[in-house]
Amino acid sequence: MNWSDYLVAHQERFTAELADFVRIPSVSADPAHVEDVARAGDWVAGRLRAAGLDHVALMPTEGHPVVYGDWLHAGADRPTVLIYGHFDVQPPEPLDLWTTPPFAGVIRDDRLYGRGASDDKGGMLIPIVAVEALLRTTGRLPVNVKFFLEGQEEIGSPHLPPFIRAHGDMLRADMVFSADGSQWSEDQPNLITGLKGLVACEVTVTGARADQHSGQQGGGIANPIQGLAEIIAGMKGPDGRIRVEGFYDDVIDLTVEDRAAIARVPFDEAEYARALGVPEVFGEEGYTTRERLWARPTLELNGIGGGWQGEGIKTVLPAEARAKITCRLVANQRPDRIFDLLKTHIEAHVPRGLRVAVARLAGSADPFLLPGGHNATKVAGDVLAEVYGKAPYLVRSGGSIPAMTMLLRELGVHATVFAFGLPDENLHAPDEFFRLSSFRTGQIAYCRLLEQLGQGG
Amino acid sequence: MNWSDYLVAHQERFTAELADFVRIPSVSADPAHVEDVARAGDWVAGRLRAAGLDHVALMPTEGHPVVYGDWLHAGADRPTVLIYGHFDVQPPEPLDLWTTPPFAGVIRDDRLYGRGASDDKGGMLIPIVAVEALLRTTGRLPVNVKFFLEGQEEIGSPHLPPFIRAHGDMLRADMVFSADGSQWSEDQPNLITGLKGLVACEVTVTGARADQHSGQQGGGIANPIQGLAEIIAGMKGPDGRIRVEGFYDDVIDLTVEDRAAIARVPFDEAEYARALGVPEVFGEEGYTTRERLWARPTLELNGIGGGWQGEGIKTVLPAEARAKITCRLVANQRPDRIFDLLKTHIEAHVPRGLRVAVARLAGSADPFLLPGGHNATKVAGDVLAEVYGKAPYLVRSGGSIPAMTMLLRELGVHATVFAFGLPDENLHAPDEFFRLSSFRTGQIAYCRLLEQLGQGG
Repeated sequence: MNWSDYLVAHQERFTAELADFVRIPSVSADPAHVEDVARAGDWVAGRLRAAGLDHVALMPTEGHPVVYGDWLHAGADRPTVLIYGHFDVQPPEPLDLWTTPPFAGVIRDDRLYGRGASDDKGGMLIPIVAVEALLRTTGRLPVNVKFFLEGQEEIGSPHLPPFIRAHGDMLRADMVFSADGSQWSEDQPNLITGLKGLVACEVTVTGARADQHSGQQGGGIANPIQGLAEIIAGMKGPDGRIRVEGFYDDVIDLTVEDRAAIARVPFDEAEYARALGVPEVFGEEGYTTRERLWARPTLELNGIGGGWQGEGIKTVLPAEARAKITCRLVANQRPDRIFDLLKTHIEAHVPRGLRVAVARLAGSADPFLLPGGHNATKVAGDVLAEVYGKAPYLVRSGGSIPAMTMLLRELGVHATVFAFGLPDENLHAPDEFFRLSSFRTGQIAYCRLLEQLGQGG
Repeated sequence: MNWSDYLVAHQERFTAELADFVRIPSVSADPAHVEDVARAGDWVAGRLRAAGLDHVALMPTEGHPVVYGDWLHAGADRPTVLIYGHFDVQPPEPLDLWTTPPFAGVIRDDRLYGRGASDDKGGMLIPIVAVEALLRTTGRLPVNVKFFLEGQEEIGSPHLPPFIRAHGDMLRADMVFSADGSQWSEDQPNLITGLKGLVACEVTVTGARADQHSGQQGGGIANPIQGLAEIIAGMKGPDGRIRVEGFYDDVIDLTVEDRAAIARVPFDEAEYARALGVPEVFGEEGYTTRERLWARPTLELNGIGGGWQGEGIKTVLPAEARAKITCRLVANQRPDRIFDLLKTHIEAHVPRGLRVAVARLAGSADPFLLPGGHNATKVAGDVLAEVYGKAPYLVRSGGSIPAMTMLLRELGVHATVFAFGLPDENLHAPDEFFRLSSFRTGQIAYCRLLEQLGQGG
C-alpha cells in the first residue's frame, strides 16, 4: 500500500482522532484550564508515538508544556526538518453564540466544529498523520523530521524563548515548517512571506479610591471611563493613523514593487465588508485595505471594562476603568520599543484628576519577513502548485506566530508556513470549524513536501 | 412615659429591627432579587402595623411594590403629612471590598454596616419609630400622617408615576417629607432646596457581525471600542463642558445671590479631594466645585464593556462595545429633551465603519428646586435648629429623588427632605453604614416635627 492509499484507508480514524483532540478544552489563557492544556499535550505525545516517532516527550516550561518527537534516520546527507504547531486554543466565549458547544467536536457537512478545530488542532494533526502514512508504508521518512508542538501560542508563547534557548541542540534544523497558518481558499494555495509582530498592554485609569454615587460626586471629580475614552480616542486619528509619537519610525515603507505584488492578489473589498457585516472598511489613509491588513502596523482595542455592566442602570461614578490593547507590528518595529512608546504617550496624556498605569501583558513577537530566495519556501510553493494545480499567491498575514520569530532568532532559520486552515473558519470566534477536505488535502501535501525535500537534499 | 423616654426605653429593639431589615437583600436592579424586594415590602408593612398605623397595605405596581399606611384621626383642621422613603437598595458589588458581607447587618462602633443601612432603610425606619413613640405615649398624632414607601428608588422609580396617578386620593397631602436624603454632618443640619433630575441611556457600537481575530482583520475594519471611546471623548471637552448641542439651553443660570448662598456653606476642596483619594478635583470650567456638584448638570459614564475582560490577552477585534450614561439635570432641563439631544448628538457622530444605537434606560427624574417661601421647609428648619442647636445650611444635592418630582407633578406639593444619613456613609459603595447616633437623633427630630406641624395647623 502506498501512502496515498494508506491515507484513504485510515481517514475515518484520523477524523475521529481530530474530534477527540478538539474535545479537550485546552484554553491556555484561562488558569482554570491549565490541566486541560497539559492533557492535550499528553494526547499529542501519545499520537506522535503511535505515528512511529522517537524520543517523544511532554516537556515542561515555566508555563504550559511543549511536546517534542523526532525521526532522525534519513541520513546525515538529508536535511533536518522541524515542524511546528500548537495544541492550545483561544477561550470559547461568548458561549451562547455557538450552534453546538465549543468542545463537543461535532461534524456537520464535512466540517468539524469546535474551538481549535482549525486553529490549530486540525492543522498540527496533518503532518503527524502524513508522517505516520510515510512510515507505515515505506518504513522510513525521506528527510529527518523533528516535531515541536507547543501549548501557549494563543497567549503569545511567553515561556517559549527560554525553552528554545535551553534546547537549541534538540531543536536544530535546516528548515522549519509551521503547521499553523492558512491557505487562500479551497482551490487556491498561498505562501506567506510576512507575518506581523505583536505587543500587548493594559491601561488602567483610576479616580476616587472607591466607586462613588454619580449624583453626589458627579461634577466634582473626573470619571475614569471618560478619561480612558479620551486616552483611547487620542491614540488614533480620524484618518486611521496611530498618533503615538514615533510609532511608525521603524516601519519599512512598502516599495512600489511590494505594492504591485500585493495588488496582484485578488481582493473584493465590497465582498470583504459584506462578509464581515460592516457598513464599510476603515483604516489608515493612504493605503489599500489589503496593504493595511498585510503590511501596516495596527493598534487594536481587545477589551474594555469599568463600572456597572449588569442589567439596567447603577448610578455609579466608578473608581476604575481598564482597556487591553494589542499592536500588530511590521518589519522593523520591535515590541519592546513600541511598548515604551505607548507607555510614554499614555503617560504624557493623563487626563486631569485621574491616575493612569500602563502594564505590559504577556505575548510578544517580532515581525517576520521572508527573504526573497528562501529555498524551503520555493519547494513548498512547488508542492502547493502540484497539489492544487495552481501557483500559490504570495501573501502576508496580519496575524502573529510568535514561535516563528523565536525560532528565527534562536535557530537562525526562517520558517515557512505550510498549513491548510481557511480564513473563513471563525478563528477566535464562535462556531470555529475546520474543513475535513482541507484536512485530507493537507495530508497529501505534507507527504509530497517531505518527498520533495528528500529528493532535493 | 413621654415619647422621649419611650424612644430611650425601646432603642435596643429599634436597632435590632433595623439590622433585621438590612439583612433582606432587596436589590431592585437585579431580577434575581425580585422576591427579596417584595419581602422587604412585607417587612415594612408589618412594621407599620406594629407602630399602630391603619390601612396598611403592600400594593403592586408594574414593577416592585409600594407600601402604604396612615393615621388620619387628628381632625380635619390639622394638616395631612405624607412621609416618603424607600426599602430597595443598590447592588452590593464589588463584594470583595466589603469588610463584612453586605447583608450581614453588623454593628461596629455604634454604626450599622450593610447595603441600604443609610440609603434608605435606616432613614425610612426613623419616622415609623417616631410615630410609634407618639401613638404609644399620647394615643394620637398631632397631624394626619400617611406613609408612602417604595421599592424601586434605586432604579429610578420607573413604575411609580402611573401608581401615583391612579392613587391620587389616597396619597393627597398638604405637605410631603422625604425620609430619603441626608444631613450636613453629625453636628450641623441642612435643608435641601434643590435636587438634580436624571436621564439614563445606553450606547451600543457594533462593527463586524461577530468577534474577529485582531491580527486577521486589524487595519481592515473599525474597532467598536475605539469608536465608542471617540463618541465618549467627544461628549465632553477638556474644559469639562458637555459638548452635546443644546445641552445647556434650558439651564437656569446661577444668579449672583445663588452663588453667594452656595459660597456661604463651608467647603474644603483639598479635604474633599483627599477624602475621595483623587489627585485633584475636575469639572466644568467657570464654576466652583460646590457649584458644579449642586447646581450644574453633569454627564457621567456609569459603565463600559466590550471584548475580552478576563485575565491575560485575547487577540480579538470585538463585534460590539457598550456604555451606560446618566445625566444629572438642573432646572429647567427635562429628561425627555435631554435624551433626544444625546441621541441626536451621538447619531451625528457615528464613527466610520461602525453602527451606533442609543437606547433610553429606565430611570428618569425632573430636577427639583424649592420655592423661596415654602412653609413645610420653614418648620423643618426650625426643628433642625432646635435639635442640633444650629441653623441649618441651605444646600442642594447632586442626587436625584425621582419620587419627589413625581409627587410634585401629581400632588402639586414640593417635598421637604427631612432625613438623617450623612454623606460619608458609603452610599452606593462597599462598606455602607448608618450611624446609630443619627438614627436616634432623627427619631427625636421627627417627633418634634410632627408636634410643631400640629401646633401650626
